Amino acid sequence: MKNILLLWAVLCLSISCQQTNKSQSKSSQKQTTADSVQQKPNAPFGIVIHGGAGYITKESLSDSLEKAYHEKLSEAISKGNEILKNGGSAVEAVQRTINIMEDSPLFNAGKGAVLTHEEQPELDASIMDGKTLNAGGVSGVSTIKNPINLAYEVMENSAHVLLSGKGAEVFAKTRNLTLVDPSYFITPKQLQNVRRIKKEQENKQSNFYTPDLNGSKFGTVGCVALDKNGNLAAGTSTGGMTNKKWGRIGDSPIIGAGTYANNATCAVSGTGWGEFYIRGVVAYDISALMEYKGLSLEEAVKKVIYEKQPQLGGEGGIIAIDHLGNIAMEFNTPGMFRASYLNDELNIKMYKKE
Amino acid sequence: MKNILLLWAVLCLSISCQQTNKSQSKSSQKQTTADSVQQKPNAPFGIVIHGGAGYITKESLSDSLEKAYHEKLSEAISKGNEILKNGGSAVEAVQRTINIMEDSPLFNAGKGAVLTHEEQPELDASIMDGKTLNAGGVSGVSTIKNPINLAYEVMENSAHVLLSGKGAEVFAKTRNLTLVDPSYFITPKQLQNVRRIKKEQENKQSNFYTPDLNGSKFGTVGCVALDKNGNLAAGTSTGGMTNKKWGRIGDSPIIGAGTYANNATCAVSGTGWGEFYIRGVVAYDISALMEYKGLSLEEAVKKVIYEKQPQLGGEGGIIAIDHLGNIAMEFNTPGMFRASYLNDELNIKMYKKE
Repeated sequence: MKNILLLWAVLCLSISCQQTNKSQSKSSQKQTTADSVQQKPNAPFGIVIHGGAGYITKESLSDSLEKAYHEKLSEAISKGNEILKNGGSAVEAVQRTINIMEDSPLFNAGKGAVLTHEEQPELDASIMDGKTLNAGGVSGVSTIKNPINLAYEVMENSAHVLLSGKGAEVFAKTRNLTLVDPSYFITPKQLQNVRRIKKEQENKQSNFYTPDLNGSKFGTVGCVALDKNGNLAAGTSTGGMTNKKWGRIGDSPIIGAGTYANNATCAVSGTGWGEFYIRGVVAYDISALMEYKGLSLEEAVKKVIYEKQPQLGGEGGIIAIDHLGNIAMEFNTPGMFRASYLNDELNIKMYKKE
Repeated sequence: MKNILLLWAVLCLSISCQQTNKSQSKSSQKQTTADSVQQKPNAPFGIVIHGGAGYITKESLSDSLEKAYHEKLSEAISKGNEILKNGGSAVEAVQRTINIMEDSPLFNAGKGAVLTHEEQPELDASIMDGKTLNAGGVSGVSTIKNPINLAYEVMENSAHVLLSGKGAEVFAKTRNLTLVDPSYFITPKQLQNVRRIKKEQENKQSNFYTPDLNGSKFGTVGCVALDKNGNLAAGTSTGGMTNKKWGRIGDSPIIGAGTYANNATCAVSGTGWGEFYIRGVVAYDISALMEYKGLSLEEAVKKVIYEKQPQLGGEGGIIAIDHLGNIAMEFNTPGMFRASYLNDELNIKMYKKE
């Protein structure tokens, strides 16, 4: 009798443990916000983009500007969705989608990128293929019309992962890329921005240089995609921070910081205060939280954006898609330009509560 | 009676579970190789260095050269050990230890660093403070005598984490650093090396450029330390790859790839094929395996060096120390210049089996 009772007690405890684990696992997959969507079973592909996070509020955008952002986000993601729908690769979808945002002066990437202290463009970009874990990045280039395309060339046609400055531009000349004069990137708006910020800095009479910490400081564009073959890819492109100096490199060209993709886990692109994203190894951290700790995509992204980054002092946003097609678009700033295309459903948002 | 029996059974199971956990924890810390040492309880500090991994064999080193390496490794690590013993910080110990290796033409860092395709030095370095998770890095500098000191200045006295090229040198002039002419770094040996490799490349008549994949390709210096206050730090300094082109940036200046430190887990410095270390986010991966998966330092380092990097195609070595003072020095190449100083015991090694 004692033995039976003992066996029964052990059995009960064992079942109770298993149920706890199951319920934890279930709760980890449930949808808790409109910006994190659980994919339907067997959904074959999906794409998510961001156009920067920051002080983006309904009040700060005119109706016509809001419409312009809406249209450009729609155009960009529709291009990527079309590629995926036709069986194209995640890498190609990421690249072509980002090209459209790079070519638009609305975003801090390519044309219209923010300018350095010397009032020049210094562009960064990176791309990663989740199938091969191959990756390419460039930093500080100013003559390549689409920096993400140079990052792709570094990935596919060099022995390297990260090339910088004039050297990267020498490599660019060996590839079939559209080259432009640096003046192509400079818009009156960004010239005005950097001059205003420089003036503010001078008035502070501080010897300690600080980059632009106001306005659209986290402008960056990024894209993550899952193609019909189950391959993930991520890409990010940016002009960095307004009034940056000293050949500053942010998180965008750095694999693991601003960009990461791995078919086993997820694809991630960040748009935040680059220094904190580098120190937090943000993009890879989301993958590691999934792979090593068993978190869902949504849990991993939320942990990084709402717990780990604020603890460190960082701000910004993340877009991500996992190998099942679940997505996350989370940010701890007032807004983030973002869009997703899943199951033929386009979803475009800008503000916190939408 | 039934209730008592039930209570007793549950209690037994609970104790048994706890014991299993304890024994797993113990076994995970046991010493399994001479290069991974379990620290004695209450040991207050420790330091580990590397001087590069690669084709380092007893046969390839003359007795006099072996003696020279032995003496310089001893001098460098003894300096760091002295700082720690006197209550100095892990960050200071890392910096001063690396300075000695940077000043020696024996290693691929500072004076004697490998040269680019243009026969010039382009030096990279980074440092991270495990207490604050603050970090600094520089890439492509050629006028700073000790690049690790510039990385320290970026960490402590700029709003940035990573500065590059000429811009980084402009920042350097605002700090109290020893500046030198680029010719200071160039040694006859490295000039000969890069010219030989360039000739080999030409003879291949290949349009596809490859960096130096022979000889001392993974030359880099690095240091990790735990100070008496329980703070960890890591630093890495290098000239990169012989015959590198296009402003190539390797893993050494990149936080998370070549260098990482976090008081909660460990401090890591890598010396490997930079491109694969970036793609594998190697230094942070070791920390993540400890933090998220519960691996010991030794298990995490071995998983990355003997499983994950070879799967990706990468080669090289890692030195690491955790917050308990356990250390690891592992490599998948024939040799790695390395030393540890723990509990007043100095240990210097170069080859695989020693």
